[in-house]
Amino acid sequence: MNKICTLYVMVLLPALLAIPSVYAASPDLIVYGDYVLTMEPGAELLRDGAVVIDDDRIIAVGPRQQIDRDYVATRAISGAGRVLMPGLVNGHTHTAMTLFRGMVDDLDLMTWLNQYVFPMEGRFVTPEFVRVGTQLACWEMIRGGTTSFVDMYFYPDDIAAVVADCGLRAVVAAPHIDYPSPGFTGWDDSFAAAQSFVQRWQGKHPRITPAFAPHAPYTVSPEHLRQTVEAAAQLDAVISMHLAEAPSESAFISQNYKTSPVQHAAGLGLYRQRLIAAHMVQLSDEDIATTAAATTVGAIHNPTSNMKLGAGISPVPAMLAAGINVGLGTDGAASNNDLDMWEEIRMAALLHKVSSGDPTALPAPQALAMATRLGAAAAQLGGVTGQLKVGLQADLIQLNVADKTRHLPLYDIESHLVYVLDSTDVVTTVVAGKVLMEERKVLTIDESALRSKVQARSDEIRAALAAQQKSAAP
Amino acid sequence: MNKICTLYVMVLLPALLAIPSVYAASPDLIVYGDYVLTMEPGAELLRDGAVVIDDDRIIAVGPRQQIDRDYVATRAISGAGRVLMPGLVNGHTHTAMTLFRGMVDDLDLMTWLNQYVFPMEGRFVTPEFVRVGTQLACWEMIRGGTTSFVDMYFYPDDIAAVVADCGLRAVVAAPHIDYPSPGFTGWDDSFAAAQSFVQRWQGKHPRITPAFAPHAPYTVSPEHLRQTVEAAAQLDAVISMHLAEAPSESAFISQNYKTSPVQHAAGLGLYRQRLIAAHMVQLSDEDIATTAAATTVGAIHNPTSNMKLGAGISPVPAMLAAGINVGLGTDGAASNNDLDMWEEIRMAALLHKVSSGDPTALPAPQALAMATRLGAAAAQLGGVTGQLKVGLQADLIQLNVADKTRHLPLYDIESHLVYVLDSTDVVTTVVAGKVLMEERKVLTIDESALRSKVQARSDEIRAALAAQQKSAAP
Repeated sequence: MNKICTLYVMVLLPALLAIPSVYAASPDLIVYGDYVLTMEPGAELLRDGAVVIDDDRIIAVGPRQQIDRDYVATRAISGAGRVLMPGLVNGHTHTAMTLFRGMVDDLDLMTWLNQYVFPMEGRFVTPEFVRVGTQLACWEMIRGGTTSFVDMYFYPDDIAAVVADCGLRAVVAAPHIDYPSPGFTGWDDSFAAAQSFVQRWQGKHPRITPAFAPHAPYTVSPEHLRQTVEAAAQLDAVISMHLAEAPSESAFISQNYKTSPVQHAAGLGLYRQRLIAAHMVQLSDEDIATTAAATTVGAIHNPTSNMKLGAGISPVPAMLAAGINVGLGTDGAASNNDLDMWEEIRMAALLHKVSSGDPTALPAPQALAMATRLGAAAAQLGGVTGQLKVGLQADLIQLNVADKTRHLPLYDIESHLVYVLDSTDVVTTVVAGKVLMEERKVLTIDESALRSKVQARSDEIRAALAAQQKSAAP
Repeated sequence: MNKICTLYVMVLLPALLAIPSVYAASPDLIVYGDYVLTMEPGAELLRDGAVVIDDDRIIAVGPRQQIDRDYVATRAISGAGRVLMPGLVNGHTHTAMTLFRGMVDDLDLMTWLNQYVFPMEGRFVTPEFVRVGTQLACWEMIRGGTTSFVDMYFYPDDIAAVVADCGLRAVVAAPHIDYPSPGFTGWDDSFAAAQSFVQRWQGKHPRITPAFAPHAPYTVSPEHLRQTVEAAAQLDAVISMHLAEAPSESAFISQNYKTSPVQHAAGLGLYRQRLIAAHMVQLSDEDIATTAAATTVGAIHNPTSNMKLGAGISPVPAMLAAGINVGLGTDGAASNNDLDMWEEIRMAALLHKVSSGDPTALPAPQALAMATRLGAAAAQLGGVTGQLKVGLQADLIQLNVADKTRHLPLYDIESHLVYVLDSTDVVTTVVAGKVLMEERKVLTIDESALRSKVQARSDEIRAALAAQQKSAAP
């Protein structure tokens, strides 16, 4: 027995223990990084590390030496001079509005909306327009290191089709509103279409989460918001909504319902659902406490859009201190005018310092968390993406920090990512284990065909703008 | 007589009139642009235009067809898919601090200054350090389209030498302060050195303007500020100074002199000099009126630095409305953390919208003017640079607006420059008629030598930081 026991302990046991490692030893892809930011809570920066991917998931994260000993992948991406981190989560945007990028700017909100945005949407937004605009947006997001986004725009089936094709991950929220909108006469048909959209896509595609998008508390009646809550509860679906964006909204809600937008929404049951609340600017301390208590609610901060439209400064540090999951979003390209999450990260870090007069407010690591881990949680994708962590989806990016002279010197990676790097430093984008961009070349979208389509659409819009400006001239 | 007269009118007169055009017909360089923004007050965007350069000056600006008829240059730079505009003026920076870029961030101002910036400056700043840091800064500025800057840092002779070499234009201001600083024990020696520097460089180099730099009203006594005014008046020299930056400065001036920083400075005679006043954040209506009345004073707005350090929001729209020349600056890379003027342009346009709640505040064309024409005037370079205008220095840049998909669509050039483009879109930089960057390649700085020098310096700083953090640990 003794000899058999020795044989077992010395030879067979190690061999048996090695089997799992042998089985997992041929994963699909290893991505390396001179610097690895996992964005796991409390995790230190990993020097010279790697992430191992099998199919669409992360199966290991660790120091390079250890990974190289345990795995030989089908494919590897070098990490020399590169930061490896989770892909960014753009928590609120209207992708197809990229076709209206810079159409008109620097106008009063009501002039902008009523004289330009709404008429142009009414005239130009079709399923084909949405496909082109969404593809342009996805191109820009893949190039900038965004791997997931929360969209809210018309013709969501067409948005979902583009997302499925280009490889990104998205919460696609179907808009419904009490007023006429592209394709609909008002609430009844837009809400019915949203219900049908959510039913059709729920659980159908691994990268697409369908959602309800009641536009805002000032454009959807309390009764219709209750209907939305019921439908979302029945389908176990996510809701994405504009909430507490501007002073005009607060004034409207106060006048009509004697409360704040947040209390109004919470009172109607929206806070019991998985809600992605975009903007969250006009908040009282009570509103922050109510939101913190509702653990299913995530807040999306859109600093550039809030600044450009003069909406106000969201109390982000207070929300974070209260434990709310606060993500970042670009909003649509008509009010930004791009979909660059690095600008939002930097802006968040700077805006709340000047707003509070406290240079220690919203330090760099927190701004990065808002664009990754916290943003994923706020976008109802917390168990899916936002960290480099075994079991999560393999959504990750590499940034080149060696090429440009402005990358010198480099003392602190997180500070450098927030205050110096920009979207042009992103070199690799991987979503669900698939490489969407390699050395800045997007692999899943035909650029030349996209350019022609965008050109054709924008020529029509430009002509319409010129005609409108001509007719408006004295 | 009639025949002679006819001959004269029909043949000789046209020939004579053609002579000037023939003489000017072989200029050194023509730079084209599909879109030309001259930044002259009231000028419209010029489609398909060109700028003609002879030696260091602009000798013509106009439509391409007209320029091509009148001139055949030794060299031409194509403008296909490009915006041509004046180079940017960075009105306030501390160039050599690029070596401290991202050294420490997100700290309380006094901790940041007293525990890190001042000790590290004391330990590392030498003439050689300043040469390396200034070269790194100049590299970054050339790449980002900055053609002129106002510098304030130690060892100004070394700064001036680097500027002379790399081809940029600068106001080089020599710091003097009541406290010990690199190379000096206090006021007497630092002020004497500044006087000697200004005397040595005044009128000596076509691209370098020497200046006095009394640090700030809270670090230089009233008597010493008066001495500065006298010396500047005697030498007809420019003064560059931090003014009205933070609440702590206002509190200090109020406590010691019972007035505001601006009234204090004006009362000491600084407002009668050609003054470049950096920051100008903490201003009363009276301070704005006083500044507007002093036509020799320019204000430099540093939005990113003011935000990052929590200094406050400068009342820029009110200053502009009062007719003050307000320029833009990056401040040093230790409080930004880069020298990217496009970020300052975008930030200025956004910050004052949210600060005022008015989305029409600081529209795109005004933000661009602050970085060019108004910035040049504020930097005391108004008659020299900042516009594409016959007689001014040939300081200009080209931006590629055709390559990237995010440049689509393009409805309005000025909006696009402010809200979408970034420093990586700058492809050509010309200063005083000399091409400093071509297709993003800097021609006047040896990148590889610079990289080694920066690496060596930053390794030393990194080691010192690590030792300090280790000794500070419990």
